[in-house]
Amino acid sequence: MPSESFVYLGDTARVPYGTKSRDTIALYAGQDIAFLKSHGVKMIIVACGTVSSVMEEVPIFEGSGVSLYSGVIKHAVRAAVNATVSGRVGVIGTPATIRSGCYERELQSLLPDVKVVTKACPLFVPLVENGYTDRNNKVTRLVAEEYLANIKREKCDTLIMGCTHYPLLEQIVADIMGDDVKLISPGAEAAKYAAKLLKEKDLLNKDSGPKICELYCTDSKELFSENVAAFLGGSENTRIFKCNL
Amino acid sequence: MPSESFVYLGDTARVPYGTKSRDTIALYAGQDIAFLKSHGVKMIIVACGTVSSVMEEVPIFEGSGVSLYSGVIKHAVRAAVNATVSGRVGVIGTPATIRSGCYERELQSLLPDVKVVTKACPLFVPLVENGYTDRNNKVTRLVAEEYLANIKREKCDTLIMGCTHYPLLEQIVADIMGDDVKLISPGAEAAKYAAKLLKEKDLLNKDSGPKICELYCTDSKELFSENVAAFLGGSENTRIFKCNL
Repeated sequence: MPSESFVYLGDTARVPYGTKSRDTIALYAGQDIAFLKSHGVKMIIVACGTVSSVMEEVPIFEGSGVSLYSGVIKHAVRAAVNATVSGRVGVIGTPATIRSGCYERELQSLLPDVKVVTKACPLFVPLVENGYTDRNNKVTRLVAEEYLANIKREKCDTLIMGCTHYPLLEQIVADIMGDDVKLISPGAEAAKYAAKLLKEKDLLNKDSGPKICELYCTDSKELFSENVAAFLGGSENTRIFKCNL
Repeated sequence: MPSESFVYLGDTARVPYGTKSRDTIALYAGQDIAFLKSHGVKMIIVACGTVSSVMEEVPIFEGSGVSLYSGVIKHAVRAAVNATVSGRVGVIGTPATIRSGCYERELQSLLPDVKVVTKACPLFVPLVENGYTDRNNKVTRLVAEEYLANIKREKCDTLIMGCTHYPLLEQIVADIMGDDVKLISPGAEAAKYAAKLLKEKDLLNKDSGPKICELYCTDSKELFSENVAAFLGGSENTRIFKCNL
């Protein structure tokens, strides 16, 4: 959506969320959403797999006055259901996401006979944040082989990479799982959904003026900037701010 | 100090601190100290290497009304200065601790000719928290070999393990560094100092009644309990509570 402007919030002073409890995640997520709402956005995408999994159980948008919003779970599930032939789907995510059971529930509601094999991968986030993403990184390969062993053994033909950070490990995951396994990136599916929804509602931006990309973080701008390039790329319209929640 | 009662706070809803900025760490630490102060303790020990390193620069105890307190830096430095023969000291810690430069400053003030070799070890905390502490754990050994390579090459004869979590990796670190390198655990040195200080001030507990050990966490009790056994052992007088900061 190159014609849209974006407001992004990374709660860097309190990350990671994925190792925390449901109640704490819901509390923080409510504050995050209030912040984004105060910027007058037309749609909010919860691009975090962990917060999306909590949203399924806790109505964090209730009373927020935001009518267009999306998590990443349902779109990833729909893509996985379309992709699987054998009906055997693997899911990797943070401890909080896997513990929530959201992927099993959503997959079973669309495909009652599905076999779901899940695995929490708590070391993937720190590995990515410390730049251990190279295809030949021995540490990450060793950890990934351990995490993916059971999903491989169970012969899943589709794997949902249920955390924002995991697409940066896609090459390593693909090498281990093999060419026949389809990898689903929830973020990409949510972006496709957002584009479709905004088009349906005739809410796509028609103004041809310059677009902005405002990135807010809650810890220092300097530390955040180090990660921005790896995750979000950069452009001349991108500006980074520190905010308090 | 088996005759003492303890109040412990783990800010589990916002950990890890070690990857965050100085300002955010100082903000959270001030709230942590206010909480412990409200429990009428006679002494506060900042057992976290990261917060201790920030304390050296930011006077977080100023105006707190607590007269007895301690971090872990100075005691570890004194032990290292006593232990080193070659005057070559290694320091490992979180990114925030290493960035602060507190160990170089303290070591140089006691031993002006000291050669200090530091290395931030950001993956050690998540490895410990995920139980990758076994002496033969391949992932942790690989990461530790990478982190310790330069300290080994520089022939340090003493190594300060500057983060609460690292003593759980002591065997692996010792295997890599070899028998001739003395490992310093800041927590143990701070405990010795606290015992000495309380004795000097005649503040050791003389009441022979039952002792309490109250453990407070800011995220869920259930998740915290999983880590308590690994770090703190357990006893019948130990009770776990959730609190809000």
